[in-house]
Amino acid sequence: MAYTVPVIEALVQALRQLPGVGPRSARRMAYALLERKRPVMGELASALAHADQVVRHCERCNNLSDAPLCGICQSARRNPKLLCVVETPADVSAIEATGAFDGYYFVLMGHLSPLDGIGPEALHLDRFERLLDEGGFEEVILATNPTVEGEATAHFLADLVQRHGLRATRIAHGVPVGGELEFVDRGTLSSALSGRRAIEP
Amino acid sequence: MAYTVPVIEALVQALRQLPGVGPRSARRMAYALLERKRPVMGELASALAHADQVVRHCERCNNLSDAPLCGICQSARRNPKLLCVVETPADVSAIEATGAFDGYYFVLMGHLSPLDGIGPEALHLDRFERLLDEGGFEEVILATNPTVEGEATAHFLADLVQRHGLRATRIAHGVPVGGELEFVDRGTLSSALSGRRAIEP
Ligand SMILES: [Zn+2]
Ligand SMILES: [Zn+2]
Repeated sequence: MAYTVPVIEALVQALRQLPGVGPRSARRMAYALLERKRPVMGELASALAHADQVVRHCERCNNLSDAPLCGICQSARRNPKLLCVVETPADVSAIEATGAFDGYYFVLMGHLSPLDGIGPEALHLDRFERLLDEGGFEEVILATNPTVEGEATAHFLADLVQRHGLRATRIAHGVPVGGELEFVDRGTLSSALSGRRAIEP
Repeated sequence: MAYTVPVIEALVQALRQLPGVGPRSARRMAYALLERKRPVMGELASALAHADQVVRHCERCNNLSDAPLCGICQSARRNPKLLCVVETPADVSAIEATGAFDGYYFVLMGHLSPLDGIGPEALHLDRFERLLDEGGFEEVILATNPTVEGEATAHFLADLVQRHGLRATRIAHGVPVGGELEFVDRGTLSSALSGRRAIEP
């Protein structure tokens, strides 16, 4: 007897695919939109379609960008001697919000995870090595997550950086072990950056 | 120094307008979509645009529908003597899920709330009265929320129903006082329906 309107069910199913949204809250969202927030539907649909169409990865650093080169790579006002390696664009956003770093970035879009079949070739390391050769950096800060995979990735990259004749540093363990960089508060992230230490060759 | 991509910020702002989504989870959703769930973006955009375009209110009962008459009003297999009045389409969906009711509905799209300037004219009561006159119903179950406004609305409607010579009943107070019908479990809602009592003229 259950009464369903297919187009509403399709909306519920699509909303369920958002992170952190279960079946109950997806249904609640769908009805709230249809009953009381009609203008939001068009606005959100456009924002999704526009972002999907326009946002790509920066050709130099791999960060999310609406242009071939992201705003950071385009900027001449950053410290040209510092490169910071992170796992995701959300990590760039978190570090930028601290105001404690003014160099450039390289975004791996992941971390090494041999068990999941993610080896060095999946992390755009060819592009990373080209950046190390051409970038004129002196220090490469490895700011991968303080997880098992993030640490392993940092050590792998430290070797690579050192083979290119550059100094590799790791953000300090101010960040809680096992946590995700993206969710760390600004103060902690800020001290982790300033307390970074050299990785000995 | 904060680095923002306007098109990503627009997406974050649009996602924030979903119920239950704060600034932090909106940002998390936006990055998850852009980094890992690109196909969901187009799918959700289409589902939103399609539902916004196609879903309207049933001309007879006011429920959400993808046709001029909703599937329930179109059905000849429902009990033609019973009409159930609810506040929202989500309430129809909740009652249908109990399987305890097989009559027709009228959806008020709200409740009386004089303090907010919501009087009888806002609740489509002209259409409701037409349905009472033409519908051939014997009993009208008032299933507005068990809140102060919902109770006041039920009493107002009971008068109206009785003036049209029909029997008015109220769902039993199995539903928790002060709660919202939409979030009541099926069993409670089911007993509330079967335990309904007459409202004496
Ligand atoms: Zn860039
Ligand atoms: Zn209908």
